Amino acid sequence: MIIIGELINGMYRDVGKAIANKETDVVQHLARDQVKAGASILDVNTGPYSRNPKDDMKWLIDSIQAVTDVNLALDSTKADVIEEGLKIVKKRAVINSTNADPEKMDRIFGLAKKYNSQVIGLAMDKSGVPDSKEKRLELAATIVAKAMECGINTEDLFLDPIALPVNVAQTQGREVLESIREFRLLCDPAPNTTIGLSNVSQGTKFRSLINRTFLVMAVANGLTSAILDPLDKELVDAMIAAELVLNKNIYCDSFLDAYRKR
Amino acid sequence: MIIIGELINGMYRDVGKAIANKETDVVQHLARDQVKAGASILDVNTGPYSRNPKDDMKWLIDSIQAVTDVNLALDSTKADVIEEGLKIVKKRAVINSTNADPEKMDRIFGLAKKYNSQVIGLAMDKSGVPDSKEKRLELAATIVAKAMECGINTEDLFLDPIALPVNVAQTQGREVLESIREFRLLCDPAPNTTIGLSNVSQGTKFRSLINRTFLVMAVANGLTSAILDPLDKELVDAMIAAELVLNKNIYCDSFLDAYRKR
Repeated sequence: MIIIGELINGMYRDVGKAIANKETDVVQHLARDQVKAGASILDVNTGPYSRNPKDDMKWLIDSIQAVTDVNLALDSTKADVIEEGLKIVKKRAVINSTNADPEKMDRIFGLAKKYNSQVIGLAMDKSGVPDSKEKRLELAATIVAKAMECGINTEDLFLDPIALPVNVAQTQGREVLESIREFRLLCDPAPNTTIGLSNVSQGTKFRSLINRTFLVMAVANGLTSAILDPLDKELVDAMIAAELVLNKNIYCDSFLDAYRKR
Repeated sequence: MIIIGELINGMYRDVGKAIANKETDVVQHLARDQVKAGASILDVNTGPYSRNPKDDMKWLIDSIQAVTDVNLALDSTKADVIEEGLKIVKKRAVINSTNADPEKMDRIFGLAKKYNSQVIGLAMDKSGVPDSKEKRLELAATIVAKAMECGINTEDLFLDPIALPVNVAQTQGREVLESIREFRLLCDPAPNTTIGLSNVSQGTKFRSLINRTFLVMAVANGLTSAILDPLDKELVDAMIAAELVLNKNIYCDSFLDAYRKR
């Protein structure tokens, strides 16, 4: 599993404040902690309150890259903001994200080709988030077809079926899990799959329990990456154990430590 | 999910001692606690050290039935011991178990027909536990065919792919999980599926973590029952959350309590 650390996002109060006041140490602390906890990619999002998202994106990337050489997922609804980041990343980036809208895909896959980036593709379009596995598959197939047309390798795609909060969209859990299983069959080489995990527990009690349960179920269905909070130790323990069950890590008595030290 | 409580088993030291000394309160305490924690069936096994397994089986059943009217799973390798139990159970019993051996199936399905019992069918035969999903499916199909021939309803079967310890049979986790998914497709009405959960963590550290992770993965693959320790609260919490994700319980903020109180 590829862990994409979600914590450097201006929508969180501490990060929003750090961006506003240019508190480098807050961002660098979050970067180091997430990498130490197992994240191999860090999501970078200036958040909804940024007045100068291009400058803030550059500042976040510079701050992070000063202390770690991890890959970054540049997370913005604005392609121009993403491109500012793509110009300065030291390692290969993930663009977060495109959807299945033709104009959006043209712009994002154009950037991906120009900067040799990977891309998260959300199984949605202008009409919103689908309510069935079938519609998710149709949109994911549209994204895969466009990526191939643009010369993007399918294993550089992270297809996201869009997990919804269990308290308001309870029928969608099963659809999302089955979508993960079937997205993998859309092309060869198989695309990566990902989910924005915290979304499933928005507004619920027992958030950590719901997050880790959903993650383990998704791993059982073949999920290859997730955007999550790597500092939730029980969550990462559950993920490591799920991969152990699937024989993706070799068993040893200290398999939890062994995974984190690798 | 149907929880089959595993704790009344003479292989556990406290129960073995209770059987030897006829300490009714020990067994009754375990019966009540397991039912309170969510078990709807209690496994009853006299254990490997019983000198008079028929008498001990009867004593265990009488002790349990004096305090609760839960269904019982009569667990013995000896059909005669099971039959002694079948004669005195007040509610419909589960026979634990047959395998795919023709003589064993003749005897067990004969009992099931005579006493209107449900049956756990282990996907193994005289040559032992299979090492692939395909062999498990073949053996499970043999059990289903024999059950139908004997006039047993397929929904009264609990097919068990036999989960193995992750530290010695690490390749088998995936085979078992996929077997659970495919067993459900063997006949219509679909059979129940079950696993002896504790087995997956035998001899490992972090037993509870491995048990609950495996259970959640199995639920994601359609598992309908499990033989487990219902007093492991984190395990049952995880199971409840997994069923919530699959929309099998309606969400409310207190969904954990709501499940246990139903």
